[in-house]
Amino acid sequence: MNKYFPGIGRVEYRPDAGPEDTLVFRHYNATETVHGRSMEEWLRFSVCYFNTFRYLGSDNHYGERAHQRAWEDASHSLDNYKRRMIAAFELLHKLTVRYYSVSDRDMAPEGDNFDETNSYLEEMVTLAAELQKQTGIKPLYYSADLFTHPRYMNGAGANPDAHVFAYACAQVKRSLEAAKRLGAENFVFFNPRDGYQSVLQRQFFRDMSHMAQLYRMAAQYKDKISYKGQLLIQPKPSDPRRHQYEADAMATMHMLRHFGLEKQYKLYIKPAFSRLTGRPYEHDVYIAAAYNMLGSVDASDSFPELKATSDICARDVCDATYVMKCVLEQGGLQHGGFTLGGRVRRESVEPRDLFHGHILAMDTFARALKNAARMISDGCFARSLQHRYSSYKSGFGERVERNTATLEDCEDFVRKNGEPELHSARYEHFESMFNYYVYPPRQ
Amino acid sequence: MNKYFPGIGRVEYRPDAGPEDTLVFRHYNATETVHGRSMEEWLRFSVCYFNTFRYLGSDNHYGERAHQRAWEDASHSLDNYKRRMIAAFELLHKLTVRYYSVSDRDMAPEGDNFDETNSYLEEMVTLAAELQKQTGIKPLYYSADLFTHPRYMNGAGANPDAHVFAYACAQVKRSLEAAKRLGAENFVFFNPRDGYQSVLQRQFFRDMSHMAQLYRMAAQYKDKISYKGQLLIQPKPSDPRRHQYEADAMATMHMLRHFGLEKQYKLYIKPAFSRLTGRPYEHDVYIAAAYNMLGSVDASDSFPELKATSDICARDVCDATYVMKCVLEQGGLQHGGFTLGGRVRRESVEPRDLFHGHILAMDTFARALKNAARMISDGCFARSLQHRYSSYKSGFGERVERNTATLEDCEDFVRKNGEPELHSARYEHFESMFNYYVYPPRQ
Amino acid sequence: MNKYFPGIGRVEYRPDAGPEDTLVFRHYNATETVHGRSMEEWLRFSVCYFNTFRYLGSDNHYGERAHQRAWEDASHSLDNYKRRMIAAFELLHKLTVRYYSVSDRDMAPEGDNFDETNSYLEEMVTLAAELQKQTGIKPLYYSADLFTHPRYMNGAGANPDAHVFAYACAQVKRSLEAAKRLGAENFVFFNPRDGYQSVLQRQFFRDMSHMAQLYRMAAQYKDKISYKGQLLIQPKPSDPRRHQYEADAMATMHMLRHFGLEKQYKLYIKPAFSRLTGRPYEHDVYIAAAYNMLGSVDASDSFPELKATSDICARDVCDATYVMKCVLEQGGLQHGGFTLGGRVRRESVEPRDLFHGHILAMDTFARALKNAARMISDGCFARSLQHRYSSYKSGFGERVERNTATLEDCEDFVRKNGEPELHSARYEHFESMFNYYVYPPRQ
Amino acid sequence: MNKYFPGIGRVEYRPDAGPEDTLVFRHYNATETVHGRSMEEWLRFSVCYFNTFRYLGSDNHYGERAHQRAWEDASHSLDNYKRRMIAAFELLHKLTVRYYSVSDRDMAPEGDNFDETNSYLEEMVTLAAELQKQTGIKPLYYSADLFTHPRYMNGAGANPDAHVFAYACAQVKRSLEAAKRLGAENFVFFNPRDGYQSVLQRQFFRDMSHMAQLYRMAAQYKDKISYKGQLLIQPKPSDPRRHQYEADAMATMHMLRHFGLEKQYKLYIKPAFSRLTGRPYEHDVYIAAAYNMLGSVDASDSFPELKATSDICARDVCDATYVMKCVLEQGGLQHGGFTLGGRVRRESVEPRDLFHGHILAMDTFARALKNAARMISDGCFARSLQHRYSSYKSGFGERVERNTATLEDCEDFVRKNGEPELHSARYEHFESMFNYYVYPPRQ
Repeated sequence: MNKYFPGIGRVEYRPDAGPEDTLVFRHYNATETVHGRSMEEWLRFSVCYFNTFRYLGSDNHYGERAHQRAWEDASHSLDNYKRRMIAAFELLHKLTVRYYSVSDRDMAPEGDNFDETNSYLEEMVTLAAELQKQTGIKPLYYSADLFTHPRYMNGAGANPDAHVFAYACAQVKRSLEAAKRLGAENFVFFNPRDGYQSVLQRQFFRDMSHMAQLYRMAAQYKDKISYKGQLLIQPKPSDPRRHQYEADAMATMHMLRHFGLEKQYKLYIKPAFSRLTGRPYEHDVYIAAAYNMLGSVDASDSFPELKATSDICARDVCDATYVMKCVLEQGGLQHGGFTLGGRVRRESVEPRDLFHGHILAMDTFARALKNAARMISDGCFARSLQHRYSSYKSGFGERVERNTATLEDCEDFVRKNGEPELHSARYEHFESMFNYYVYPPRQ
Repeated sequence: MNKYFPGIGRVEYRPDAGPEDTLVFRHYNATETVHGRSMEEWLRFSVCYFNTFRYLGSDNHYGERAHQRAWEDASHSLDNYKRRMIAAFELLHKLTVRYYSVSDRDMAPEGDNFDETNSYLEEMVTLAAELQKQTGIKPLYYSADLFTHPRYMNGAGANPDAHVFAYACAQVKRSLEAAKRLGAENFVFFNPRDGYQSVLQRQFFRDMSHMAQLYRMAAQYKDKISYKGQLLIQPKPSDPRRHQYEADAMATMHMLRHFGLEKQYKLYIKPAFSRLTGRPYEHDVYIAAAYNMLGSVDASDSFPELKATSDICARDVCDATYVMKCVLEQGGLQHGGFTLGGRVRRESVEPRDLFHGHILAMDTFARALKNAARMISDGCFARSLQHRYSSYKSGFGERVERNTATLEDCEDFVRKNGEPELHSARYEHFESMFNYYVYPPRQ
Repeated sequence: MNKYFPGIGRVEYRPDAGPEDTLVFRHYNATETVHGRSMEEWLRFSVCYFNTFRYLGSDNHYGERAHQRAWEDASHSLDNYKRRMIAAFELLHKLTVRYYSVSDRDMAPEGDNFDETNSYLEEMVTLAAELQKQTGIKPLYYSADLFTHPRYMNGAGANPDAHVFAYACAQVKRSLEAAKRLGAENFVFFNPRDGYQSVLQRQFFRDMSHMAQLYRMAAQYKDKISYKGQLLIQPKPSDPRRHQYEADAMATMHMLRHFGLEKQYKLYIKPAFSRLTGRPYEHDVYIAAAYNMLGSVDASDSFPELKATSDICARDVCDATYVMKCVLEQGGLQHGGFTLGGRVRRESVEPRDLFHGHILAMDTFARALKNAARMISDGCFARSLQHRYSSYKSGFGERVERNTATLEDCEDFVRKNGEPELHSARYEHFESMFNYYVYPPRQ
Repeated sequence: MNKYFPGIGRVEYRPDAGPEDTLVFRHYNATETVHGRSMEEWLRFSVCYFNTFRYLGSDNHYGERAHQRAWEDASHSLDNYKRRMIAAFELLHKLTVRYYSVSDRDMAPEGDNFDETNSYLEEMVTLAAELQKQTGIKPLYYSADLFTHPRYMNGAGANPDAHVFAYACAQVKRSLEAAKRLGAENFVFFNPRDGYQSVLQRQFFRDMSHMAQLYRMAAQYKDKISYKGQLLIQPKPSDPRRHQYEADAMATMHMLRHFGLEKQYKLYIKPAFSRLTGRPYEHDVYIAAAYNMLGSVDASDSFPELKATSDICARDVCDATYVMKCVLEQGGLQHGGFTLGGRVRRESVEPRDLFHGHILAMDTFARALKNAARMISDGCFARSLQHRYSSYKSGFGERVERNTATLEDCEDFVRKNGEPELHSARYEHFESMFNYYVYPPRQ
């Protein structure tokens, strides 16, 4: 476990390290207890294999591959995939995380046909299982990559060609089997190509119902093989499609509910995608949690100016604090965790940059966890909410909450009580209180 | 009917008029048959009272009232409201529309208390009823204005104060009564202040459930008084709130379904708000129609650069063509129609600018209707879709659509049939075909 | 000085106050020395009269006036303006700031004609001068309000009507006189209506040259009356116009240089407007400073989702740190300072909310000042830049900087030295270092 | 000239072809006279080699290469580059265009060192010269590709390493020589990597001055070798950088003027990038033209929702009409023309899709040309502008335009003439007039 990142040891918690020493954790202290659990338990960090090991610094036809990796020749040979996996476990070990997040095509290349592809996958899953045994690391989620191969260029579950649909499903079947074998805590559906560029070329509802069939079959097969992981779907608004069908938390929950799948699935929210829809980072996390559908979180971010996937390593403690407050308030993520989904910039060509990126994201969420914990334990926000909604605790308000009021009751109430008083929302006061926790005065 | 717009007669269809003659219709010919119905029947144009008569050219504290209106002194006196209504019916008559779209506070000012307010409303409804009788014009929709009064600054149905909630409900009760009396075809809920600036200050799910109570009570009272109009909700993503609860078609349909209200309500889509969410103009129209929930459409637009409500008069024939194609394909809007929701710019200070604005929007949708009708009757798009989805008509694909396939079946299919062929999506070809209808070659 | 904000005393620095106590400064300690000067000297906070006292909680025709102000009847009477000014000085005094930022129409209403208007202004300037004397407070900047009156609806300096242009200039003349009398440190041009909605209706270059005439005349008159303040222009990209002529720092500097005005003017940057152009908050501050043209800064912010002016009170310490780093590196703002340009939300109806808002912004920039000071004194960023550009210090690189190289030299250099090495930009490392200062580990 | 696109002949003008026949021009009729010149002369269409032949349907690590091309094996072998060039000339010929737009790295691969690279280039330039001779086609512009190779990952002209700067310059030298040999009408600088991700890592002004050195040396060398082409710079706001130095027309013109280069350079405007900055498509075209700096135009577009380079084939006739109106009003583009810079979508996998895409863009601009020509010859817009600015033609207004007015004159004028009248801007009327030309009533 010291071959591909020779100058780097296991990353340590060293809050007193100087500003230029960025190969240490300043905030993340795995075993420290915060709000009743260890930081490790709350955060369950996982490295995203795809963005850490399959992104090699290319920029489409605008920029050739730039990253320098001793283990990587960019080929589809099994040897290359094996070296990559060994490098991956070295990084996981040194980063002190317990989980990785991976798909079938991250692990193994496609062969000349379906069977060859699966025998490659088999071989790589066996290697992964060994490395897992050596290190105690396992998948936070497993997934089927239904988007990199050209066959999926027009979608997978929502492809207008039933042949492609079948291929996607077959791949999901094998992936569920691998997920079971590797003990993946979750199984995620990413559907970045299921959507449209133009409404002229698609039948929206029909596409959605095909996707629902895939989800139904997956849930059935999961039960059949007794795989215990949680099924998750990741909403994404656009890019590469102008519009993707599972565009945000609400759209995905609507689909699940319409097709009767809301019990079997939860959401894997990537807050960076909330920015893409012109909403705050924490938005879909809150929406999903409000309906008890938040399964797991992607701890990457995006440049707010771009309305495109930029997958930078999370660094905004303020926004992460909103996310952590929501996660603490619902008692943690259970099966889920925080996947380190960022990828280093093309110009960050050295292997050690991978560490800088992940450490940055881990410290960002670790500090956010501490901020949120203090916010909750102090109780200021909770008290103010209680006060604000107090009129619903008894009398007329209570009847509203019990669903027994009528419009006539409302008119009577107004007749008796006249005009309501204006209460300041005190927005600025609350922002100030929030900053108290994120930027504490005495340091 | 010739007092406040003295130099303007009834607007005529004159396709041969020159470029500077903009007080005529070039495309809208009310009685012309297109795709089996008259243009008037398809479009059911309605003037938005609020943006036509309550916007007086102010720009908050950045700009004082600029519009010059002979009927308007900007006061809350009943006389002012009466002159305004008479001016409104003159404009409606001259514009040759059959509908107007109006709220309680558009019609009448608030009094010193709930009863006085309602007696003002009563008086104005009586005047409106008379003017309706004289002209044959009636409301496409009626609404309760639950956002201009300061009491609603923190929301109406989702206000954290039950007293305000009650007030909103009482106002809805009276508005439903007025809607019935005036024969409004629809009753719309606008909820621009029901949302939040900060998740710190709100309980999202609780707020949603309060709104659902308002919707439930309204549906019950509607039945009780035997009002036959269609209940509608208008989704809006943000502005004035950072996030509004009924943010788009999907979010609103999810709420309705979660609280069991999907049979009683439909959506009033304002495509300009789809732009605000970073999606194409036609987006929410398509989404709502896909689930058979499209009730009515707002025919305004917004500057695409601004992510704020700009309410310009629709002028983009290309985007309107997408909307009309969707409306024709579902056989029209039934109770609904196209509300002319634009407002003239602050610099358009003369009364005749109101005509220019509405004529622009009417011609935009009229031309769009004709474009869409040709697209559909030629059948090119329909044929290509049929071809594209043909694999779902029999065999394996048919079983997917009948919900009887399993992942094992999919794997078998792939084993037998191997790799799917790549079919070009031909995006550029379809765009070219679309342009054929919008910008026909021979003129 | 204790009439309109009765329960509020002078705001104190109390870093140990609890989270709910938001009428104190946690970071701003006026007399504390940071990086060689007092915080007060670096920051020179000024309250924006316009957004603090002219915004009364209206939301155009979407929302009636909501704010409750004992001193304000929203009329244009002189008495109302006097009460407002007394309230303003009470707030300034209690907020412990030394400056206010004000325009002619903030101070006094328009009369029935130009002379009456100026006699009102005269009277109010006299009152202001007295209050300044009592308190030691003076204008950071003075301005002519060339946008609220309907006459300016199509622009002021760039109005297509020379009559309006003349009016704007006459108003600027009187404002320069008032600025001199009140000892304003700067004189600002805001031109939010000088731009266009449509290129069809404007002659871009002609409009720009008219504006340049206004700037030329103002500079001449300033010299004539020996007014010593710095002339400033505030760039703004859009809203209310689709495009404003002085859209950003670059556009404004290009105009100044094209018309030979770059010596007489500097820029008053509002970083919130950089967000409107899809750039980071600090962007135009950096651009202006790079060309030595940064005059003053507006310390407000905007919701990043909206592409419209939202003028919230600054609360993002991270972004403010970038701004302060730039200001420290150029040795401060000289004549300029930080204007508290935020306005409280419509729902923040109570007078004390004005304090919450300004305190929030002051603490945000105070904390940012401390962060930036540590960044600079540690020298990590400076050292890394020096290292990164070291190849320009001698040999070939030095010749490039001395403008003596030719393409042939370059080819020779490449022939001799071959392919350059790849150096990682280490983006993630630098972000981590930045976070070290903004979110320090030990608290 | 019939090897790689076997089923496709030369594209013909056939305005009567049906909707599904999209391998014809419906609007573009090369020899038809419009506004005094042939359409070919106004438009001077040129195919972008980079986006037509180097984009092979990959989507970074998110999507593998999808396009099926008989001539292409995606290798860097000279043979592959030769086949590609032969295919390119076949496409150019069949598309009936007279120009192509090309860079050194489009033509030839890099070798193991600078000299080998240049010998490859030499060989390919020779082949190009032959093919040009056979077909009469030549470069609209030539360019040096200073962005695909990893050495340029941190910029070219603005690279912090002088060694990379030298390499870029050496490449420009050779490219200028090739441009001369091939008779390129223009020479373009693209600088997509010259900018920053973070202000922490760059010295903005120093970078700009280095770029200016490159421009100065290029202009000198151009004169030295007597190359007659026009030097152009393409502004781009961002993507791949968070901020690029030559962000828009204004920023680029400011740089040129600051460093004294405004006589030697013009701008190559890509209107799709104006959308990226949140402005209308035509924006930078108008700005550049206002200062007489518009050199050439890229006729691609971008999805308005994305704030990233999407390079779709232009299809918006309305927006293109604004551009053509500007080009006609300045008497055409002289050296410049319209480069067909779109690329087909990844899902458009067949070679014929390349034709669909370019035909779509050509017809879009051809129709726009006709629209604009009618707008200008009718004179409505010109007359209205003349009327609107008439007050500047004599008296006070004339003195403003002659730069002889003072603020005192302005005050005198206002004293004499009182309050200006309000004139409606008639925005809606003008939009209606615009639509008259784009969507003519009688068809």
